[in-house]
Amino acid sequence: MRLDNKIKIQSSVSINTISLKYTERNLKVLDQTQLPEKEIWLDIKSPKQMLMAIQNLSVRGAPLLAVAAAVSFYDWLLDHDNDSIEIKKNTLHLLKHSRPTAVNLIFIMEEIEKTSLRLQEVQVCLQSIIKKELNFCEAIASQEKELISSGDNILTYCNTGELATLGLGTALGLIKKAFLNQKKMHIYVCETRPLNQGSRLTIWELAQYNIPSTLVCDNAVASLMGQGKINKIFVGADRVAVNGDTANKIGTYSLAVLAKYHGIPFYVVAPENTLDDNCISGEAIPIEQRPGEEVSCFWAKNKNINIANYAFDITPASLITAIITNKKILQLFKN
Amino acid sequence: MRLDNKIKIQSSVSINTISLKYTERNLKVLDQTQLPEKEIWLDIKSPKQMLMAIQNLSVRGAPLLAVAAAVSFYDWLLDHDNDSIEIKKNTLHLLKHSRPTAVNLIFIMEEIEKTSLRLQEVQVCLQSIIKKELNFCEAIASQEKELISSGDNILTYCNTGELATLGLGTALGLIKKAFLNQKKMHIYVCETRPLNQGSRLTIWELAQYNIPSTLVCDNAVASLMGQGKINKIFVGADRVAVNGDTANKIGTYSLAVLAKYHGIPFYVVAPENTLDDNCISGEAIPIEQRPGEEVSCFWAKNKNINIANYAFDITPASLITAIITNKKILQLFKN
Repeated sequence: MRLDNKIKIQSSVSINTISLKYTERNLKVLDQTQLPEKEIWLDIKSPKQMLMAIQNLSVRGAPLLAVAAAVSFYDWLLDHDNDSIEIKKNTLHLLKHSRPTAVNLIFIMEEIEKTSLRLQEVQVCLQSIIKKELNFCEAIASQEKELISSGDNILTYCNTGELATLGLGTALGLIKKAFLNQKKMHIYVCETRPLNQGSRLTIWELAQYNIPSTLVCDNAVASLMGQGKINKIFVGADRVAVNGDTANKIGTYSLAVLAKYHGIPFYVVAPENTLDDNCISGEAIPIEQRPGEEVSCFWAKNKNINIANYAFDITPASLITAIITNKKILQLFKN
Repeated sequence: MRLDNKIKIQSSVSINTISLKYTERNLKVLDQTQLPEKEIWLDIKSPKQMLMAIQNLSVRGAPLLAVAAAVSFYDWLLDHDNDSIEIKKNTLHLLKHSRPTAVNLIFIMEEIEKTSLRLQEVQVCLQSIIKKELNFCEAIASQEKELISSGDNILTYCNTGELATLGLGTALGLIKKAFLNQKKMHIYVCETRPLNQGSRLTIWELAQYNIPSTLVCDNAVASLMGQGKINKIFVGADRVAVNGDTANKIGTYSLAVLAKYHGIPFYVVAPENTLDDNCISGEAIPIEQRPGEEVSCFWAKNKNINIANYAFDITPASLITAIITNKKILQLFKN
């Protein structure tokens, strides 16, 4: 059936970023677990395949994975517009819950859910989502004017750049924009264990722009701070609660405590759909635990070793200097 | 010449630990970089080979490498007792400076240097050193009585156990002794990037004793502390300055800041020859920088990526609750 439909129903949505491509019914995601050693594109032929790609982190970055899930639903709908509303909702929910900590995903899927779930309406909704996501990145990046000065030595964490969004990025978008605007900076990048998004992805993205950078192990950051080598920290977010508590990649809380101790401003950078009005504080944010094998790349893989592998942690608002969104510098705490 | 001497001159020193063996002129060190996947013993036939084994971390752990260096000198001396004092001193100095941060090594080599450097005297000195090192571990371990309670959830870092010393260990020795004395505990072990001494060595040592343990990434520790899962921290030391500032594996300072923030006691455990009376504060301790390749196990190995790989950091005395030596609980700060 699919083949027939493919000929008949053409998609009116197209995306072309460095990690997500969708054109003429071909949905491809860059397998970010293989980067930067190998550039392998995965063909996503069903929502189930997208679910797997999100869960095994081939597709990652809260803004990117949310759009990727939405596109996957839309592509499926092209062949299933006549299915029952229940089947459509089940498919949507499958994708909606693929990454419990990230809230953009939930909001974007709910935006689609509010439509009739008929193809035409979903298409309009998706096109609006894509446009918004691009605008989010641009509006965030432009705030570098107030936030970054020439001579800054900036620490960043995980990957919040073009691989993680539809545009320049969030935290990394700010940094890139400042560099494009001729500001001199040095960027310290944390390895970001256990999946090394910093050493694999962020260092690679910065190298594309020739932005001066240094890679360090996560546990070396305190020492750098103590030596006065870092004067600002920019990180992304997977979800921000009403009180400002922020869920982000495991290790973010650690950086925030260390920043507080050393008197270094700590900025969270995220699009507005990362702010969760339904979540009053960090305690209400679910923290995904992932398989221990991600940590134990060694012998422990085949042994009976206890491993705690929290994928995210919660940084309380009291440790955050400001939360930067596309709209404004949302909250400003004294650090 | 060597072969003839080997037949004539027998060694009167013998050592048999899980990582260092010396018997009948055969000096072997366990290649700890290969553990626990492979148990490869390296034959050390010259001080130069020992120097390399220390520098590439095949032999590691401040107490162990100091004794290993001393034994290597002694074994060389068995064939070179008639060499000039200058040649003997040069050989000694080669080994003395193989690991700049660790001070036990320097002290032990200076102890030997104070002798006539004649074989008989060096042998007596070495036998005394070995005896002292064994006593250090026993005296440290016995202090678990005051320091560890049943029910403790303890965080430890790097490897400070039987692989790193001649006995049960320092920080890990305390923990093992408490377990052998029937105390119930759970041990959280930090991966310890970039060389993973925690996930490779400490988890393996704890498993030999069936001590309940959980491996976590270094960047997950703050989150564990925030959740109230850790109530004590024990780490080792490579050098302690007169004012209590302590050099230890990179990441130790980070743990100490996090412990302070969360109100968790932070203990440094080390034999008395880790205390450096010539060093007034942490600023005077040289910090070894190691090759970036240790961090970049990925693509960056073959690319022009800046990597800062400090092997050690300095924890100021103000963040240390107490320094535990073989003699006593040396300093007690309020945490």
